[in-house]
Amino acid sequence: MTLTTSRPADVSDPGMEPLDQITLADLPALARGAAVLGTGGGGDPYIGRLMAEQAVRRHGPVPLVAPDELPPGAVVVPVAMMGAPTVMIEKTPATELVGHAVTALAEHLGIVPTHIACIEAGGVNSLFPVVAAAQLGLPLVDGDGMGRAFPELQMVLATLDGIAATPMSIGDEKGNTAILHTVDNHAGEAMARALAITMGCSAIISNYVMSGAQANTALVHGTLSMCVTIGRAVEQARAQLADPIRAVAHAVGGEILHTGKVVDVSRRTTTGFARGQAVIVSPDDGELVLHFQNEHLMAMRGDRPLVTTPDLIIVLDTDSGEPVTTEALRFGHRVTVVAAPADERWHTPGGIELVGPRYFGYDTDPVRVGS
Amino acid sequence: MTLTTSRPADVSDPGMEPLDQITLADLPALARGAAVLGTGGGGDPYIGRLMAEQAVRRHGPVPLVAPDELPPGAVVVPVAMMGAPTVMIEKTPATELVGHAVTALAEHLGIVPTHIACIEAGGVNSLFPVVAAAQLGLPLVDGDGMGRAFPELQMVLATLDGIAATPMSIGDEKGNTAILHTVDNHAGEAMARALAITMGCSAIISNYVMSGAQANTALVHGTLSMCVTIGRAVEQARAQLADPIRAVAHAVGGEILHTGKVVDVSRRTTTGFARGQAVIVSPDDGELVLHFQNEHLMAMRGDRPLVTTPDLIIVLDTDSGEPVTTEALRFGHRVTVVAAPADERWHTPGGIELVGPRYFGYDTDPVRVGS
Repeated sequence: MTLTTSRPADVSDPGMEPLDQITLADLPALARGAAVLGTGGGGDPYIGRLMAEQAVRRHGPVPLVAPDELPPGAVVVPVAMMGAPTVMIEKTPATELVGHAVTALAEHLGIVPTHIACIEAGGVNSLFPVVAAAQLGLPLVDGDGMGRAFPELQMVLATLDGIAATPMSIGDEKGNTAILHTVDNHAGEAMARALAITMGCSAIISNYVMSGAQANTALVHGTLSMCVTIGRAVEQARAQLADPIRAVAHAVGGEILHTGKVVDVSRRTTTGFARGQAVIVSPDDGELVLHFQNEHLMAMRGDRPLVTTPDLIIVLDTDSGEPVTTEALRFGHRVTVVAAPADERWHTPGGIELVGPRYFGYDTDPVRVGS
Repeated sequence: MTLTTSRPADVSDPGMEPLDQITLADLPALARGAAVLGTGGGGDPYIGRLMAEQAVRRHGPVPLVAPDELPPGAVVVPVAMMGAPTVMIEKTPATELVGHAVTALAEHLGIVPTHIACIEAGGVNSLFPVVAAAQLGLPLVDGDGMGRAFPELQMVLATLDGIAATPMSIGDEKGNTAILHTVDNHAGEAMARALAITMGCSAIISNYVMSGAQANTALVHGTLSMCVTIGRAVEQARAQLADPIRAVAHAVGGEILHTGKVVDVSRRTTTGFARGQAVIVSPDDGELVLHFQNEHLMAMRGDRPLVTTPDLIIVLDTDSGEPVTTEALRFGHRVTVVAAPADERWHTPGGIELVGPRYFGYDTDPVRVGS
């Protein structure tokens, strides 16, 4: 796979096997691969995995359906965690909440969901939909709304397709819930964020209800199979004493940007986000600075952005190839930064307006991997 | 009426005529009286009055029903504005929003409202229910949830009665809406406040749906008639060249605490509230300091609290007797501070826990007027 590929990977890629279900045995690889595409955000893969394991152990494997195999009239209901992942490490949501968010929204709308879907790829947000699908006995769509993780909820390809984020349900572990109707998806983000903060920065949301036909267009295809492929590639490389970093870079169609040691991390959890930057020093290449807001959004060398959002900036533990979330970055950590292309739709003018560097306050045009 | 009366006034008081409707001619007096009981908060009476006049002109007078005349099975739906009144001066909500908040909640619950009610007494929040009642062609309950204004929405006698604030609707002038379900009324305040701030500190809420039997117990009786009585007392005193301050003090069963000139006002709008303090200097009595959070909550002379919440601290323009909201207080303003007893239920242990000075961060036991 080359950098001209339109996605980090593709179900049509010979190296990738589309799965027809998620079993207990797939979950470690799924969690790892999801954290890779989570680009530092999307929550702790360990917590997501534990919750998914609990649900799959209890309810059995979750059938996967490719977006292009969905009946056009399917009722697809996405579900996700919203909040600062830094908080979730200390405050794991109750498993039952995940399915509740879906049923609360379905009851409000008077609909019967036929499929569950992922809003984003990430340690928690690729796994919580597995939890909901298992609990509700529904198949899961093999795709997601972003092809990676992004920090705000309007940042899905569905927004570019004119699909409304609301009606949306949001709930916390105490039992507080809300149903939101907003005039646009940015207002949906603002209102849900305000509530998620009030809910202790850890809430479950269900939103972007769409038909099978809409899901086929608005979702990135094959994300969950892709996550398992990435996760398995790391396992295999380690088993064969090969380089797990190269295995990840190959699986995501990316390139290695930088290898070094974390010498500084500054971060603060503010208005519901974990914002900050990390400095990674290499004896050969000098300093690379990563800027993040839940996800890694820009990699700078000196004054020059090497890669920016929407492309993927992935931080891996140099020895193990394990993805490192922004909140797990620590002084002294030896890491490798891999960059990979985002879904091509993010590089359209509408996509750049929604998730380009200027939206996040970085005064630069987008810089694509390999450019 | 003496200070031992259980309420600032009472429908059984010989000086007070319970009204059977609110006409266009009643609105100036209603707005003025509501701003008196609003104790500095509850929003600008002028804006509330304009909106009520518009609605009554269009839809006709609003019938008033005493709480003890409600059918026990009546479906009573309160409505109010939530936010910082400092903001509303610049951003008047659209009139239609007021009725919409009620119908949004009713549709969600599948109920048909029979009566509208006031959550609090205050310049806006005694008038907006007139707007909703006129728009929806429903009678209005002659009462309110507090007998005064308080800054947070759990601060109603209904909370002491175990009546839930939610399901609640909240909406803004752009068309964003939410329905909230919370585990307790404090969570209802927290979630609605977060949304009201996101909505630009100006939102319309409808909540505390109650039966006629519950309303009879949980509402302060006769509030709207009382407001008109207070407002008319000021008019009459001025027409007769009598002292309007004494007229108000008599009508609310209160006493004059202090007369002087405002020499300092500090205020900031923070987390959705207008907080601050005002210093009023009198040549005879020295300094009185008023502490407010939307409403006046404590009057201090030196280190000594003279009167605290839950009792009413009312600021009047010394010359005209017009009530002065906390946001209208200005340097050089000649004002008189009147204190009046709150509904006796606020002085129970549960009432003090909910609205006593310690709740607001003032390290003092409650001090009652006349003590």
